[in-house]
Amino acid sequence: MASYFPTVPTVKYEGSKSKNPMAFKFYNPDQIIMGKPMKEHLKFAMSYWHTLCAGGRDPFGVETMGRTYGQTDPMAQAKAKADAGFEFMQKLGIEYFCFHDLDIAPEGATFEETRANLLEMVEYIDGLMKKTGIKLLWGTANCFGNPRYMHGAGTSCNADSFAYAASQIKNAIDATIRLGGKGYVFWGGREGYETLLNTDMGLELDNMARLMKLAVAYGRSKGFTGDFYIEPKPKEPTKHQYDFDTATVIGFLRKYGLDKDFKMNIEANHATLAMHTFQHELRTARINGVFGSIDANQGDYLLGWDTDQFPTNVYDTTLCMYEVLKAGGFTNGGLNFDAKVRRGSFTFEDIALAYISGMDAFALGLIKAAAAIEDGRLDKFVENRYASYKTGIGKDIVDGKVTLEQLEAYTLKNGEPKMESGKQEYLESVLNEIIFG
Amino acid sequence: MASYFPTVPTVKYEGSKSKNPMAFKFYNPDQIIMGKPMKEHLKFAMSYWHTLCAGGRDPFGVETMGRTYGQTDPMAQAKAKADAGFEFMQKLGIEYFCFHDLDIAPEGATFEETRANLLEMVEYIDGLMKKTGIKLLWGTANCFGNPRYMHGAGTSCNADSFAYAASQIKNAIDATIRLGGKGYVFWGGREGYETLLNTDMGLELDNMARLMKLAVAYGRSKGFTGDFYIEPKPKEPTKHQYDFDTATVIGFLRKYGLDKDFKMNIEANHATLAMHTFQHELRTARINGVFGSIDANQGDYLLGWDTDQFPTNVYDTTLCMYEVLKAGGFTNGGLNFDAKVRRGSFTFEDIALAYISGMDAFALGLIKAAAAIEDGRLDKFVENRYASYKTGIGKDIVDGKVTLEQLEAYTLKNGEPKMESGKQEYLESVLNEIIFG
Amino acid sequence: MASYFPTVPTVKYEGSKSKNPMAFKFYNPDQIIMGKPMKEHLKFAMSYWHTLCAGGRDPFGVETMGRTYGQTDPMAQAKAKADAGFEFMQKLGIEYFCFHDLDIAPEGATFEETRANLLEMVEYIDGLMKKTGIKLLWGTANCFGNPRYMHGAGTSCNADSFAYAASQIKNAIDATIRLGGKGYVFWGGREGYETLLNTDMGLELDNMARLMKLAVAYGRSKGFTGDFYIEPKPKEPTKHQYDFDTATVIGFLRKYGLDKDFKMNIEANHATLAMHTFQHELRTARINGVFGSIDANQGDYLLGWDTDQFPTNVYDTTLCMYEVLKAGGFTNGGLNFDAKVRRGSFTFEDIALAYISGMDAFALGLIKAAAAIEDGRLDKFVENRYASYKTGIGKDIVDGKVTLEQLEAYTLKNGEPKMESGKQEYLESVLNEIIFG
Amino acid sequence: MASYFPTVPTVKYEGSKSKNPMAFKFYNPDQIIMGKPMKEHLKFAMSYWHTLCAGGRDPFGVETMGRTYGQTDPMAQAKAKADAGFEFMQKLGIEYFCFHDLDIAPEGATFEETRANLLEMVEYIDGLMKKTGIKLLWGTANCFGNPRYMHGAGTSCNADSFAYAASQIKNAIDATIRLGGKGYVFWGGREGYETLLNTDMGLELDNMARLMKLAVAYGRSKGFTGDFYIEPKPKEPTKHQYDFDTATVIGFLRKYGLDKDFKMNIEANHATLAMHTFQHELRTARINGVFGSIDANQGDYLLGWDTDQFPTNVYDTTLCMYEVLKAGGFTNGGLNFDAKVRRGSFTFEDIALAYISGMDAFALGLIKAAAAIEDGRLDKFVENRYASYKTGIGKDIVDGKVTLEQLEAYTLKNGEPKMESGKQEYLESVLNEIIFG
Repeated sequence: MASYFPTVPTVKYEGSKSKNPMAFKFYNPDQIIMGKPMKEHLKFAMSYWHTLCAGGRDPFGVETMGRTYGQTDPMAQAKAKADAGFEFMQKLGIEYFCFHDLDIAPEGATFEETRANLLEMVEYIDGLMKKTGIKLLWGTANCFGNPRYMHGAGTSCNADSFAYAASQIKNAIDATIRLGGKGYVFWGGREGYETLLNTDMGLELDNMARLMKLAVAYGRSKGFTGDFYIEPKPKEPTKHQYDFDTATVIGFLRKYGLDKDFKMNIEANHATLAMHTFQHELRTARINGVFGSIDANQGDYLLGWDTDQFPTNVYDTTLCMYEVLKAGGFTNGGLNFDAKVRRGSFTFEDIALAYISGMDAFALGLIKAAAAIEDGRLDKFVENRYASYKTGIGKDIVDGKVTLEQLEAYTLKNGEPKMESGKQEYLESVLNEIIFG
Repeated sequence: MASYFPTVPTVKYEGSKSKNPMAFKFYNPDQIIMGKPMKEHLKFAMSYWHTLCAGGRDPFGVETMGRTYGQTDPMAQAKAKADAGFEFMQKLGIEYFCFHDLDIAPEGATFEETRANLLEMVEYIDGLMKKTGIKLLWGTANCFGNPRYMHGAGTSCNADSFAYAASQIKNAIDATIRLGGKGYVFWGGREGYETLLNTDMGLELDNMARLMKLAVAYGRSKGFTGDFYIEPKPKEPTKHQYDFDTATVIGFLRKYGLDKDFKMNIEANHATLAMHTFQHELRTARINGVFGSIDANQGDYLLGWDTDQFPTNVYDTTLCMYEVLKAGGFTNGGLNFDAKVRRGSFTFEDIALAYISGMDAFALGLIKAAAAIEDGRLDKFVENRYASYKTGIGKDIVDGKVTLEQLEAYTLKNGEPKMESGKQEYLESVLNEIIFG
Repeated sequence: MASYFPTVPTVKYEGSKSKNPMAFKFYNPDQIIMGKPMKEHLKFAMSYWHTLCAGGRDPFGVETMGRTYGQTDPMAQAKAKADAGFEFMQKLGIEYFCFHDLDIAPEGATFEETRANLLEMVEYIDGLMKKTGIKLLWGTANCFGNPRYMHGAGTSCNADSFAYAASQIKNAIDATIRLGGKGYVFWGGREGYETLLNTDMGLELDNMARLMKLAVAYGRSKGFTGDFYIEPKPKEPTKHQYDFDTATVIGFLRKYGLDKDFKMNIEANHATLAMHTFQHELRTARINGVFGSIDANQGDYLLGWDTDQFPTNVYDTTLCMYEVLKAGGFTNGGLNFDAKVRRGSFTFEDIALAYISGMDAFALGLIKAAAAIEDGRLDKFVENRYASYKTGIGKDIVDGKVTLEQLEAYTLKNGEPKMESGKQEYLESVLNEIIFG
Repeated sequence: MASYFPTVPTVKYEGSKSKNPMAFKFYNPDQIIMGKPMKEHLKFAMSYWHTLCAGGRDPFGVETMGRTYGQTDPMAQAKAKADAGFEFMQKLGIEYFCFHDLDIAPEGATFEETRANLLEMVEYIDGLMKKTGIKLLWGTANCFGNPRYMHGAGTSCNADSFAYAASQIKNAIDATIRLGGKGYVFWGGREGYETLLNTDMGLELDNMARLMKLAVAYGRSKGFTGDFYIEPKPKEPTKHQYDFDTATVIGFLRKYGLDKDFKMNIEANHATLAMHTFQHELRTARINGVFGSIDANQGDYLLGWDTDQFPTNVYDTTLCMYEVLKAGGFTNGGLNFDAKVRRGSFTFEDIALAYISGMDAFALGLIKAAAAIEDGRLDKFVENRYASYKTGIGKDIVDGKVTLEQLEAYTLKNGEPKMESGKQEYLESVLNEIIFG
């Protein structure tokens, strides 16, 4: 069997003084942070598509990376690709992966053939999982790449496209269950519109909800007890994507009664495309009880498309892991690297270096987030800041014991509120102290 | 009594060939469009703040416009300002206005004094309304300008600030009822955060909902049967504003059971700041049954702040009025010009020219929207495009009669969906034909 | 010979009342506008790449459009494609086209083979040009799609890539000259950087200038008397593109002494990606004497990538043609539709509808721009506004006859300047009057 | 004399383990970095306007901070403000300051009075400088706040406004010289346009250049040997600002022959508003020989206006100081904190905390930048990456020894270039290793 990826030292963690590029500097899987080993906090997953399939094509250029794994026959290639993927995860010590149906098995000439390919590859991958102990984090279906989805899948104007997507999703759910996945993701790649001039937005949203209900009913009937996720994204490829951001999705789930079965799979780069910070999206999910899983990557604030870069900004990973820790950690979810190497980083070695970079950045984030919580100054500040709601008029407000008239009477007596500084600059310097101290 | 604004020809409509700058070219209030006079379709309102109060200050420069109306005493100025406002509405033929409490009455040294000022000015304005027949579209309270709201009003960390806002809102609701207003608006100018480092987002959102519930209970108890509105805006002045956009607000209203009493007041420039088209926000409100009123203005897509320009883009006004017509027109709402003249347009004449420009642009929008509906090609196209959901498998999907397994069985038999073009380019040319034909 | 495109009525102009979708509503090639037929003002060109080659692929989906012209052999396909292109231009009455080397001839296994393909196709196309009277507007080389240009062409870190690009450009210039083109375009698709961490910006910019000087020297030595153009774009595919916008390119040209030979090829969508209006870029080019040619398309202000939509916004086409008329019209340049149909508009018919839409929008723009100039109010306003520089102290300033001390002496005597309104709102309403009057 | 600011420990540096908020954690002025004490590398300056004048007003709210220094008479207030400023700089150990004319002296009823105020305050401040040893980094004139500049100063349509600005600039240059400043800054706050409909862009740019030439001639005639700076900004307050970014300004300077006397004063937040990284602007200035001074602050990538936050992002300060070190450090320039505390951080204590935060962030940036240079991996990588231009065909290209024909001959022989990875992910992990190692 061919080997594609470089070897990473068996002693995973070499410490930040090592200059060996092929070694973790900060990620030490077994290091205990707040009572749990790093790897259990982080639950890193490999994204099958970016890591094993993507070849560097962009709108202005062809592929730069050979990703044929020495095979030309589609099924042989699919198997060689799976072998390479498990080789990679083993070498890096990654314990989970995520996939779309079409990542792991090639599309056939007919739906029947595609399904047969999928079934065969599921068994093949199951074998690799058994051999290696690697687990499936979540599965999904690619209902956006094929021309039949040019106008959407669940939101297509064409009922046959809806039916086709439903069929594909059925099999992707089966595959997820078969491989023991604890999550199933909806990312609505074409669920949106290009122009309102040709769009019945009301029907499209109703239909999207119908598809999700069908999926939940089916999954539950087959014994799936994991989470369904929606992955918000505001645009791209469509001009407007219906699952714009976490708040929008929450409104959608509530409207259609889907909020019991769905949680969020939050992607950093999708957050920034929606003009939010990554932390904002995580916080919004957390306080609404829908925090689920994370697509760990990084965008470029100065670019307007999904760059899906490997995450390296330790401020962002720190604030992310702070929210994760506050949410009580992952249950069914984890950190899936929905990230791709740059088009000019075309070697297999680059992929390994990129994952090391991303995993180290999240290890640092975890260390710093735990330090922030242990330091306690940030949390204490917030607690004190809202203390006025714990007694007196504030408590009455929270307890629903006052009317507008009573509040006016209070104000007449109380006069001008006594204000205190928000101290943002101080808090930012505390954060720097914790991160660099 | 001093006169500030130029006279606009009594025959309002001079037609587009007139070169008299102080005359309507397209707005003819009594012209019948789809069975109703233009003025009833459009229900134009003057914004008290931008029109009568704002003096041209911006973050880099002081006021350029004198807006003292020849008075120095605050209450005398407030009355002269009201006189000028009613002079303006009469000269332009505007039948509605909108106000914040602090636009119409000056802040006093104490809450009591401020309230007394407000009560006095409400009576004064009531007199002007009776004299002129001009009506109140909606009222609101300015709970964002005073330092006591630096950390928010309903979402303040300070319970006394919450209480103060509640007290102000009580009186603003009273004023709205007293003046016969059919709407009361919440724009959460400081209801958001500057940094998550000092913010308890969960408590803040709960409190915002508490304040709204108190306002609804109070208003209904005083016989207010109009609409409460939320006006979405994603940011500015705060880094993140909780009422980000229509979809976000819908989720919020549903979470807290406020969706029965609240509708949307949608502002064009706030839509674009949220990275949506104006039409998108209107459509989202319409299909969710929360379309209410409109803040008519225009932003600059290349600038990142609320420029509140007078609306002149006829594409936008056409697509806006298309949504309004499809929603069955305004009930309690209307078109409030939340727009200000540029800092360099500092004369009173400029204000009149600006309103003429905006009213003409909406008159054109109404004419073109009606023409689009009468033409029928756009609507027909959409109807045909989704025809597959009216029979066969599509109808079964809509009727909830199929499962994923049945859809898979259908796909196995049906094979590849037959796709049709979305014809966006054609539809765009139809729109141009209608607008310029 | 196969026919791909629908027939457009031979009587080109059917007027805006026709509901035949396959007919011009506003474009009447022979209509005289300001002394010249429309077609001479507009000089429409077909973009070979988007019109004949692009198949609807995007980063999230495969091609939706078959663009093989019934052939599998690359050279046979290239010829069938050329036939289809000339069929299209004849049916639409388009008199110019633009191409990249690789649009018209397939890449071979070696540079030699590629060059041979190009030479053969140039002769083939020359035959079609002779037969139809259709002319070449400009040519260019695709030095961005192949993996050898992953790090740039003229700005590559690899001297062999530079050399390869130079070789390709030599042949593209030869082809342009052979086909009688009056322009040669540089669009620096990969001339920029992904990260400053690996970039020697100084050397890269020097090298880009070196390549351009070599191209000018070669072209002039072969008798090319047309214009060289740079087409500014701020980003995409690279994170930062060196030819960011017109002002940046002007600085570059001046630094390296290239300003005699280069003009601008300005694209609407690239302007908006640089946060400028289309008109701003045209104006900047005009006042700096580098206005050359136009890539006519339209972006989406709410999206952050190059959507290359067909232009339909008549405000934009009006302001564009206003600048073109003020610049004295095109000399060597023209209006090249660097625009593509949406992925869901996958039929050949859609392409024809799209061009009709775009050509009609520019015809309207020309009509309205001429009307604005004939109306005279806008120009007159500007002339009056700056009148203070024609006499007195203003004239002295312009003539360089005063010092700071003298200006201070003047101010001491003159006191506070008397300000006049900028009247933006009035001017916007004049524009609407002209466009909709 | 009243005291406003808290005391900072006399032993400036307490180390990052200290939890005293009023102490430097990372900035140790005398610590030697690459052969020079930190304070000489950093040359921190206090911005007079944000630090001493600004009161927290924003477009939606009034001032939150009292900045009257216990005085009501304008000149008494100006002196008390100056006292407070020097108290602040002494307590923080800041050795430089920067000012606009109107920051230090109040505007009078006439130009003469304003000038007299300025002259008096210059002498007063000179006294404070002598007493404390604190120095002036640069001066400038506020030619944007007054209504007379509503249409611009150097680019005003009103010659009297131009003359007034020129007069103001003369006195600001005098003041700068008198106080020993080594820089004079032009920030064109209103030098741009609101709409092209009323703008003669060509004349405006010519006039802006005329004003700069007058200023240079005057300054040099009075013995000023320091640098003139332009501070680029793309927009705000105007829709378009002519000094958009560094590249644009370079083109402008070259056009008008101003490139000998002007360098750049680069502001971080202005860079991001122009869609550039801070490092990009510094690099562009450096390779064009116009690096001058820095306005140290930080924007918010998700907001579209100048937030002028205190800089705390250590990635940005590291990459900034990397460029400064590569440029050979500051000559006449320095790091001016053009940053303001948030509106909710309204105490004097907040200002001290904010400066500590910003100075610590730049101290860390300096330490990390020096570490990156000493580590050498990044620089070495870049050097190797471009090695092909040091020999063979690459050297010939750089030396201008080859033609397109010769490059084609080379390519025919050489064949396909051998590509190497750009290794962006690896370099990003090296940067993290250096910053967090």
